[in-house]
Amino acid sequence: MDIAVIGLGLIGGSALRALAARGHQVLGYDADPATRATARTAAARAPQNGRWQVTGTIRDAVASAGLVIVAVPLPAVPRVLDEIGAAGYTGLVTDVTSVKTPVRMLVEQRLQGRHQRLAGYVGGHPMAGKESSGFAASDADLFHDCAWVLCIEPGSTSLGDWLDLAELVIGLGARVVPATAEEHDRAVATVSHVPHLLATALAAAAADPLASALAAGSFRDGTRVAATRPELIAAMCGGNAPAVGPALDGIIAALQDARAALDAADPMTALLPWLAPGHAMRAGWPPALAAPLDIPARPDALIRLGRAGGWVKAVSADRSTVTVVRPAPRDQGGPLDDL
Amino acid sequence: MDIAVIGLGLIGGSALRALAARGHQVLGYDADPATRATARTAAARAPQNGRWQVTGTIRDAVASAGLVIVAVPLPAVPRVLDEIGAAGYTGLVTDVTSVKTPVRMLVEQRLQGRHQRLAGYVGGHPMAGKESSGFAASDADLFHDCAWVLCIEPGSTSLGDWLDLAELVIGLGARVVPATAEEHDRAVATVSHVPHLLATALAAAAADPLASALAAGSFRDGTRVAATRPELIAAMCGGNAPAVGPALDGIIAALQDARAALDAADPMTALLPWLAPGHAMRAGWPPALAAPLDIPARPDALIRLGRAGGWVKAVSADRSTVTVVRPAPRDQGGPLDDL
Repeated sequence: MDIAVIGLGLIGGSALRALAARGHQVLGYDADPATRATARTAAARAPQNGRWQVTGTIRDAVASAGLVIVAVPLPAVPRVLDEIGAAGYTGLVTDVTSVKTPVRMLVEQRLQGRHQRLAGYVGGHPMAGKESSGFAASDADLFHDCAWVLCIEPGSTSLGDWLDLAELVIGLGARVVPATAEEHDRAVATVSHVPHLLATALAAAAADPLASALAAGSFRDGTRVAATRPELIAAMCGGNAPAVGPALDGIIAALQDARAALDAADPMTALLPWLAPGHAMRAGWPPALAAPLDIPARPDALIRLGRAGGWVKAVSADRSTVTVVRPAPRDQGGPLDDL
Repeated sequence: MDIAVIGLGLIGGSALRALAARGHQVLGYDADPATRATARTAAARAPQNGRWQVTGTIRDAVASAGLVIVAVPLPAVPRVLDEIGAAGYTGLVTDVTSVKTPVRMLVEQRLQGRHQRLAGYVGGHPMAGKESSGFAASDADLFHDCAWVLCIEPGSTSLGDWLDLAELVIGLGARVVPATAEEHDRAVATVSHVPHLLATALAAAAADPLASALAAGSFRDGTRVAATRPELIAAMCGGNAPAVGPALDGIIAALQDARAALDAADPMTALLPWLAPGHAMRAGWPPALAAPLDIPARPDALIRLGRAGGWVKAVSADRSTVTVVRPAPRDQGGPLDDL
């Protein structure tokens, strides 16, 4: 089965390289001619690591494909879906966009309407990234050990499509985390999108030369992702605004509590209870893991697995079960017990 | 000249090791008997890297010292200063506490009153740290290339004492940044103390298991310092509350602006101007440097150097000038011009 990758930035380019390195026939396309040329040159130079082809149009990329991976920023998704539909493509579509509800709605509007048949759509999101972007930063090993969400909507997602994609993504070394689009969007608002806003606010506050000269480890790490291209941060956070807004409200409220503690007669004592939950979470992260076990390959069981912080590491041959890994229960000796 | 280090945690222990490794006679003391035993054992095991002695009392540590480095958390500083005074010590005192105005006031109250004479006090703060703490984490190279603030208060700090300490600290590989205590406290509130509060708020928000499982690079780096012992964060932030409060207010106000942009009809477009200053700062940090030059070793010139983001890298033999490094002017091709 040929796989088309539309968009050859950091994630799309890395998917192209990773899939090709594992023997898949991959066709890539990017709207930018210079990126296409770079990707063509890279293919010619690394034949031992798998080969891919770069096409001049989306139509050519999807013509022979059984799977299309949409790897463009959210603002470009509608146009790409329209082109995929206009090419008459009827196979499986996934994407790697950092927000899932809006993409799901776009797919329903543009590819799954009355006049078109699409075999299926399963939203995806690999939790991998760098502060550098573009095909030049792409890496066939980018997804090794990273969480890769594959969305399940009870009653609408085809379990067969989901398992197909799960096997493909496991093959790239990723941990397949099942979640509904809404639960995904809420979780990444907190752990991915809001951190970009905090980093940016902190960096802006340190523009003073003396502050900049004194900035060390806590500043360096706390602001690393502020160097990300503003357009990418705006697309991530703005595209997930319904979830990022409430998550940011929660952080602002917590910081206002810290602010009140700083005004207390004894701010050191007042801050201690405020600091405890965040310290406990971070000192116990990532959590210790329980031994793998097999569970039924059913949407409800998979969604519960994701909610418990677990992921799929293998799909059984008859596809009736999946082998999963979950955090160890805290009362059985997880690291949080040591705090 | 013997040097006494009071407090053998991460910073004090590293100072002990670094000074001993450069041939200084160093006496260390810690209030915790187990820490003293560990530091004694370490001295016996690493003779080729310099030797230090560990005393059973502060009095013994300071008896022969010409310099005392106070390396205890802020809450312990008053008691340590009282013991130094009670031992009849009249030499130079410095400290490594992360907040300078309160320590300066404590020294004035407890060591520089009418009935006692002290050769001098110069507040210090090495901008080095790790999320691990204690003597076990100490490292003779911890200060290599780190900024080490040495405070100058015009009209009260002895320039001779300041230059003595500058030479000592430069010998440990650090960049000596001159600043008043007040300017220091304001700068570190932004680049060191507030980042610990942001990291802690973010970690607490990600306690949900799905969010925790999806947490990747931006979360890992943005929350790293939340694993710091809460007592240390409380002492840092609470001890500098008069500066941390306004700095946190500034961050909250910036986040509220971001929140408003998320509510805009087009949040992606609304976020872009909000993101620009933080991106520009971080993409241009650390700044490119101008060629070193010599300036007069005068308090006013040194304070201006610190305000401009520069530091002292050498003191001339006759101590009339210092060699300094400063960021390159932006209009002469600093990295910010590339944005």
